[in-house]
Amino acid sequence: MRQSELIGKTRKDAPKDEEAKNAQLLIRAGFVHKEMAGAYTFLPLGWSVVKKIEQIIREEMDAVGGQEMHLTALQNKASWEESGRWSDEVLDVWFKTQLKAGGDLGLATTHEEPLTNLLTDHIASHRDLPTYAYQIQTKFRNELRAKSGLLRGREFRMKDLYSFSKTEEEHEAFYEKAKQAYKNVFDRLGIGERTYLTFASGGSFAEFSHEFQMVTEAGEDTIYIDEEKGIAVNEEVYTDEVLEKLGIKKENLKEAKATEVGNIFSLGTRFSDPLKLVYKDETGEPQPVVMGSYGIGSSRLVGAIAEALSDDKGLIWPKAISPYDIHLIQLQDEVKDAAEDLYKKLVGKGYSVLLDDREKSAGEKFADSELIGISKRVVVGKRGVENGTYEVTDRITGETADMKEEDVCQI
Amino acid sequence: MRQSELIGKTRKDAPKDEEAKNAQLLIRAGFVHKEMAGAYTFLPLGWSVVKKIEQIIREEMDAVGGQEMHLTALQNKASWEESGRWSDEVLDVWFKTQLKAGGDLGLATTHEEPLTNLLTDHIASHRDLPTYAYQIQTKFRNELRAKSGLLRGREFRMKDLYSFSKTEEEHEAFYEKAKQAYKNVFDRLGIGERTYLTFASGGSFAEFSHEFQMVTEAGEDTIYIDEEKGIAVNEEVYTDEVLEKLGIKKENLKEAKATEVGNIFSLGTRFSDPLKLVYKDETGEPQPVVMGSYGIGSSRLVGAIAEALSDDKGLIWPKAISPYDIHLIQLQDEVKDAAEDLYKKLVGKGYSVLLDDREKSAGEKFADSELIGISKRVVVGKRGVENGTYEVTDRITGETADMKEEDVCQI
Repeated sequence: MRQSELIGKTRKDAPKDEEAKNAQLLIRAGFVHKEMAGAYTFLPLGWSVVKKIEQIIREEMDAVGGQEMHLTALQNKASWEESGRWSDEVLDVWFKTQLKAGGDLGLATTHEEPLTNLLTDHIASHRDLPTYAYQIQTKFRNELRAKSGLLRGREFRMKDLYSFSKTEEEHEAFYEKAKQAYKNVFDRLGIGERTYLTFASGGSFAEFSHEFQMVTEAGEDTIYIDEEKGIAVNEEVYTDEVLEKLGIKKENLKEAKATEVGNIFSLGTRFSDPLKLVYKDETGEPQPVVMGSYGIGSSRLVGAIAEALSDDKGLIWPKAISPYDIHLIQLQDEVKDAAEDLYKKLVGKGYSVLLDDREKSAGEKFADSELIGISKRVVVGKRGVENGTYEVTDRITGETADMKEEDVCQI
Repeated sequence: MRQSELIGKTRKDAPKDEEAKNAQLLIRAGFVHKEMAGAYTFLPLGWSVVKKIEQIIREEMDAVGGQEMHLTALQNKASWEESGRWSDEVLDVWFKTQLKAGGDLGLATTHEEPLTNLLTDHIASHRDLPTYAYQIQTKFRNELRAKSGLLRGREFRMKDLYSFSKTEEEHEAFYEKAKQAYKNVFDRLGIGERTYLTFASGGSFAEFSHEFQMVTEAGEDTIYIDEEKGIAVNEEVYTDEVLEKLGIKKENLKEAKATEVGNIFSLGTRFSDPLKLVYKDETGEPQPVVMGSYGIGSSRLVGAIAEALSDDKGLIWPKAISPYDIHLIQLQDEVKDAAEDLYKKLVGKGYSVLLDDREKSAGEKFADSELIGISKRVVVGKRGVENGTYEVTDRITGETADMKEEDVCQI
């Protein structure tokens, strides 16, 4: 892609009403456009990151037996009335709308009810269980305030998986597998080292739920980390009683600010009871299905990573989700042909490359490159071309080296 | 995938309130679930077809320089008021909703306004043009009636590309490229031979628009086909004057029923004028941007193909969008190991395989296989296993042959 043609120009300032650092950076770097508070259009650079994140999540959900599907955003009220969540007083983030043909609809903020209802058509016997359904799609939440950029959207992208099991034991076995799948996701995204499985409040369905918390100074949560065990405890359940139950010693814990990048919940029969999702066990007796839900906000992740991994110069993308593999900078007009030549070679090798072919000063190009944060930068400059070398810089480590063409083609 | 575990069981009857053949078939075969009239959840088989269709479209849009992005569904009224399309009397398929924080929102049925508005940030000079943006996502239309299954959804999937050009000539050049890209899409989907570039009413922006009409008896449109030229004329512009203008002779035309699977429009400055999307030409003078829009409904395509390519036994998927490459039928319990063995070999060769390992009669398995319509069926039966052969049937041609394992692995 030639940067002169890229939709999404860098800009000096974010809109004045944008308070969140993640959105300020992403807007300035041309990744997103603010439609309204809490609703952002993904421009090509931003959408590329979202697609890469979602593909990693998809592969890990497939690997634990998840079946991908796609539920509707439009929600009939029937199944939500059965679960008691249609009322705005119970679920306070509904967007509601009306059919021209008559009747109230809601926009889905989550999908326990329609999926549980749908599966009453497909689950009858113990032979139909366990089963795991997931989707990656847009959700809507009518937040009263939405000042956190992509961290709390009125419209956002999310992967939500739901597990359906015969018994608590079968549920627990999958719940453990899901924990590992989530670890794999965050490792592959490049944030594994700073992301902790964190014990949090279980709500009314279970003693604990589990969050995946990424350590960042900008985090809105406080967690207590046991580095040795590789787990953490959220402030909300940080009591002596809980620590004892978990076999964690207070003196081993380190306090840190963190932001949630995923969560998993045991739901018990909270939804299968009211929506009558039952299976016949081996003796023919009807039994309620035991459920769990497993969420990762893919657009929230873009915002969280923008906050956590940026520096004062701009964004820093881990290699696996960098919008392009290489940012190729054509430094002067005179090296246009050399830059085009290297561009074609790198694309031919299978790299995705953003070629900065704009008529801008070297200073502006370097500043934009640091703002955009592609993981590798390769500079084609007059002096280098004379020597047959290119300056290669790693955006994450900041390390720079002059490399010959054959080495650039293997970074 | 083992069919015993697949979410989405076949069923004898569609819901009683489902009138459309496409939805009846897709529901019976376990591809979709009806949430409400005009809104269908895609189950794993259906979602697999949608993803394949959308990937083909994506590749062809990328090939003509389209840049993929993702606009919001939630719409602020400001830019729609500027274009005059906020009112329900002008655009009669709006779903409207309200922010809890105050203010009216709409759900996007199309995206000319927000994209034109967004690009005022990114288009300033003639150097920024032409440019092409597209997205593949969910759209909403508050249809008064929605009885056509996936052909007319209240919530549906769509690819919409928008072109932005300096002049009419530049616009026309891309418009021709888009026609070819659309032909490529329909060829690759496997419906190229029955899909015609069709002249239709241009509305207020241009003399003609162009539809891509797929011939099918169930079609809601009537078109007149010139086989030799490979084009057609929609009934709405089928006049002597138009035929003369197009250089088409009435006696060469064949009347046919057809269903629209794509359309492309010249928009002129209909949106760039009110939304003030201008560029400075080489002399520094401001000029309005010339626009076009290019749509393909990916979920509508699933419905249209289900109507057009099915027979009285069920669905028939073209190879490129078949939910699985192979439907592998384990005919009796005794051949379970042989079926598993072949399943693993085929998956190892890179085929996607649905293995019917259910405890059902041969008759039920064959009937379900024909209903689901995967393009190739491979039967593992007792007699065949003794002879070292498998029965391979092409769902499209109906041809059947007994093949040895090495040949099955190359179908």
